[in-house]
Amino acid sequence: MKDLHIAVLGATGAVGQEMIRILEESDIPGIDLIPLAGSSRPGRRISFRGSSLLVQSAEEQGFAGANYVLGATDAEVSHALAPAIREAGAVFIDNSSAFRMDASVPLVIPEINGEDAFRHQGILANPNCSTIITLMAVAGIYRLSPIRTMVVSTYQAVSGAGSAGLRELEKELRQTLGGETITPSVFPAPIAMNVIPWIGSAAEGGYTDEELKMQREGRRILHDEALCVSCTCVRVPVARSHAISVTLQTEEKLSLENVRHAIDSFPGCRLWEGNEGACPTPLDAAGQDAVLVGRLRETPALENGLSLWCCGDQLRKGAAANAVQILRLLTENS
Amino acid sequence: MKDLHIAVLGATGAVGQEMIRILEESDIPGIDLIPLAGSSRPGRRISFRGSSLLVQSAEEQGFAGANYVLGATDAEVSHALAPAIREAGAVFIDNSSAFRMDASVPLVIPEINGEDAFRHQGILANPNCSTIITLMAVAGIYRLSPIRTMVVSTYQAVSGAGSAGLRELEKELRQTLGGETITPSVFPAPIAMNVIPWIGSAAEGGYTDEELKMQREGRRILHDEALCVSCTCVRVPVARSHAISVTLQTEEKLSLENVRHAIDSFPGCRLWEGNEGACPTPLDAAGQDAVLVGRLRETPALENGLSLWCCGDQLRKGAAANAVQILRLLTENS
Repeated sequence: MKDLHIAVLGATGAVGQEMIRILEESDIPGIDLIPLAGSSRPGRRISFRGSSLLVQSAEEQGFAGANYVLGATDAEVSHALAPAIREAGAVFIDNSSAFRMDASVPLVIPEINGEDAFRHQGILANPNCSTIITLMAVAGIYRLSPIRTMVVSTYQAVSGAGSAGLRELEKELRQTLGGETITPSVFPAPIAMNVIPWIGSAAEGGYTDEELKMQREGRRILHDEALCVSCTCVRVPVARSHAISVTLQTEEKLSLENVRHAIDSFPGCRLWEGNEGACPTPLDAAGQDAVLVGRLRETPALENGLSLWCCGDQLRKGAAANAVQILRLLTENS
Repeated sequence: MKDLHIAVLGATGAVGQEMIRILEESDIPGIDLIPLAGSSRPGRRISFRGSSLLVQSAEEQGFAGANYVLGATDAEVSHALAPAIREAGAVFIDNSSAFRMDASVPLVIPEINGEDAFRHQGILANPNCSTIITLMAVAGIYRLSPIRTMVVSTYQAVSGAGSAGLRELEKELRQTLGGETITPSVFPAPIAMNVIPWIGSAAEGGYTDEELKMQREGRRILHDEALCVSCTCVRVPVARSHAISVTLQTEEKLSLENVRHAIDSFPGCRLWEGNEGACPTPLDAAGQDAVLVGRLRETPALENGLSLWCCGDQLRKGAAANAVQILRLLTENS
């Protein structure tokens, strides 16, 4: 394999740092890492496989010499820089929402629709974090029988809002325990010892844009326009790893035994069952790439109904690890 | 009205203390309060309307002289002491799960099925906290058209596990922020900066007993054996107030306008809507008796589907306030 010149755009953010960590720990040889800051924070240094690298400004530096750009900025920056990336001849694997609904851009979870990656025209999109974790948990079930409806409530960690979200939680927790007054800035209400049923911005029908992503992106990833998802997105005072409570209906009635096997044998997925009280929590999922699935049971309230609970590290499989998987898919098959 | 001799059983626990606070602040005149400890903690003193009262052992003291006993202990203690309460001629309003499914015991949310209270034979039961808060939020909708199915995910505060739950959360938060190791004792996993999808003990079909309560109790309260509820109960690191994400199907299609009005005009319920990002959180509900309802929207994924979010203080309306409401209902109509 030829040397890989990989630019990480947003190298100092929560997802960008995680991308660099995953590349560093990977067995991919000969990586020439180019750490770029989207719009702020150039000038910092990061270490990578024994070298100390200067984070440079993407606007000034450009993308010359890069084969791949891993995007870990917000949608606005991705939109602004995509033409320069294309011009430099690099492939852009973007974690923002900028291109996810663009029909010419593959939206890829490698275990589910990896073949879509090869139809790219220079840009590939990483799905939303909750979408990745939920679809990873239910994809094995979907292969047994198409899922018609999912009712989903999320328990999303503060680092889904970046490093600033994590700092706000820790600051507010200290203030709360010290009896001080809290003035939230990142979240719309205090998040310490609280939960907030509002993530993102208002969209149609009383939903937030975050809540509409799972149906929209799920349909593209599963190639199934009939998939219906009703989602309530809730921020919880957890540092990292999202958890999701899912109740779903399949087209055909499935046996729990077959469903158990389908989940546990799905790559990247682990069924977490055991004695009374055994269930995966966000702390169990933190720092690893596997999506943990537990609390599997039939739901008599709905025809062909199943309920389950899943947890995944939204900075790893929900963002950075999935992007690096797409990169590997392309490099190992090019 | 004659003098009321009211024993509070479990006077030193989280719910018992709240009952005493609500009685103290109420306009009910001439209360003779008898604070009793269920099985432990006699000998403490509590203050009530200017008097300092000694907490006595229920086993030693008995219930002689009491007209009403408000129960705030666990089901075992309630079972054990019910015969002595009956013998003393007192009416037992019990917050535990001991008698909730006993057909001869009314299970009462005064705003919803207050008339059932008058059929009591010496014992009345207070429903489960999440059941009370959820049914308060949806009862107005139910009166427009019966609810056939509810898919529910809860966000339950640690004080639902009593004062010990609250102490465990605060201790663990200090340990986490200080980088110390956590050893949980009240909850099955660390609750600081985590969420745990397991409350109660294992019951049939992979559900916990806590999860089965909403359907079982809901059917009794609404007198509707066709009501189906699929529930996932999750503990979150919140001090007080439970929150619940509800997606439901009604028999007939309802207009959002009618639903809005039904919720906001239901006694004890408040619709919480406003500008972008307006939503009720557990911190907003803490310390008050009203159930706050927000995020109301149609759910295209289900026929006649609606989604909403509700919060209520589980020590107030979810327990102590509901019990005192039942007491008032009986005393003001006796």
